[in-house]
Amino acid sequence: MPKAIVSLSGGMDSATVMAKMIDEGYDVECIGFTYGSKHNVYENNAAWELCKHYNVPFKIYVLDEFMSDLNSNLLKTGGDIPEGHYEQENMSLTVVPGRNLIFASIVASIAESRGASCIALGVHSGDHAIYPDCRPEFVEALKAVIGASTENKVEVLTPFLTGDKISIIEWGLKNNVPYELTRTCYKDQELSCGKCGSCTERLEAFQLNNVKDPIAYEDSV
Amino acid sequence: MPKAIVSLSGGMDSATVMAKMIDEGYDVECIGFTYGSKHNVYENNAAWELCKHYNVPFKIYVLDEFMSDLNSNLLKTGGDIPEGHYEQENMSLTVVPGRNLIFASIVASIAESRGASCIALGVHSGDHAIYPDCRPEFVEALKAVIGASTENKVEVLTPFLTGDKISIIEWGLKNNVPYELTRTCYKDQELSCGKCGSCTERLEAFQLNNVKDPIAYEDSV
Repeated sequence: MPKAIVSLSGGMDSATVMAKMIDEGYDVECIGFTYGSKHNVYENNAAWELCKHYNVPFKIYVLDEFMSDLNSNLLKTGGDIPEGHYEQENMSLTVVPGRNLIFASIVASIAESRGASCIALGVHSGDHAIYPDCRPEFVEALKAVIGASTENKVEVLTPFLTGDKISIIEWGLKNNVPYELTRTCYKDQELSCGKCGSCTERLEAFQLNNVKDPIAYEDSV
Repeated sequence: MPKAIVSLSGGMDSATVMAKMIDEGYDVECIGFTYGSKHNVYENNAAWELCKHYNVPFKIYVLDEFMSDLNSNLLKTGGDIPEGHYEQENMSLTVVPGRNLIFASIVASIAESRGASCIALGVHSGDHAIYPDCRPEFVEALKAVIGASTENKVEVLTPFLTGDKISIIEWGLKNNVPYELTRTCYKDQELSCGKCGSCTERLEAFQLNNVKDPIAYEDSV
């Protein structure tokens, strides 16, 4: 059985990628990171629950030190999380420069060391406008650089790259992904806010699938 | 004055890159890493001394945790450092999977956050045979992926990519790079061994420049 290492944030996208890789017959292990984001403890707890659900090994690496030197409102060291729609200009404040490249590089090195043939990432088209490191041209360059830097030519799989959050949830609902265990909100609070760009996009994606989002929001409790 | 962030190991190659970037008029800052290599404390001390010499800011980030999960004899968690010539098969035991990609990704993110236009790396042709992440095809892919993952399109400069250690020292000797401050040996000991692949290559490069290596070796004290 080929082995795959999934970069698992605890959000919906990477949770669905994990489920899809298992569905496709891979022997899956997951890696998460703490990196000083405001929602880090909540999303990592979600990631643990997801791995428990799927009986998949999980390990979290601590990157807080160097990541705290990067400029981003997503981090505890940055300003407030903006509210409103994800595509809006102010959401670019939540970019963490080069984050996905750093995460993917580490996950690929672990894959090389453990003899895994590939890594899998949850990037999708809904993130392209705001996040440079979610765009197809980034993913193409990432495949090339990881192939070139590893003796085993570790592959980079992005099963939902051309899809969006709506199609991700559509696949996940059909395949029983436990979205009640996932964490999407960017804010530093236990209950999801329902107002930040990340919550807004999640709620819309459930609505467009005619399904109620199974998690609780602060305005609805 | 354009700003450049140099990935500085404390070895000869990156020391010469730092000197060259300063010589070319860049405002230089350096970043080093601890990552669990046997010679880490010695090379980081060398890096501090080099930055003091050139009056350049320096910061070390700690990556020991996740790097200790990678397979390599260069690391404290791995087997013995092999002796002999650098090009030999056994030196491939000292590859740390994807190390340069991880380091470059972090340095590029810092560059993006600080408004630096470029990063500079000390890769050269002498390392191509053993280390996949020193080869020209890796560097080309690295330039593409860092350009694509940063809004400012951070550049990757490798001033000695087509040269070898002999030509690096040649430039450095003409430009007064303080090689007596650098640390090359891979072994976990204060005095350089003079026998590992890294020492062997360094000694040869000085010899071919008809200059005595200014550092002490264990067999010569």
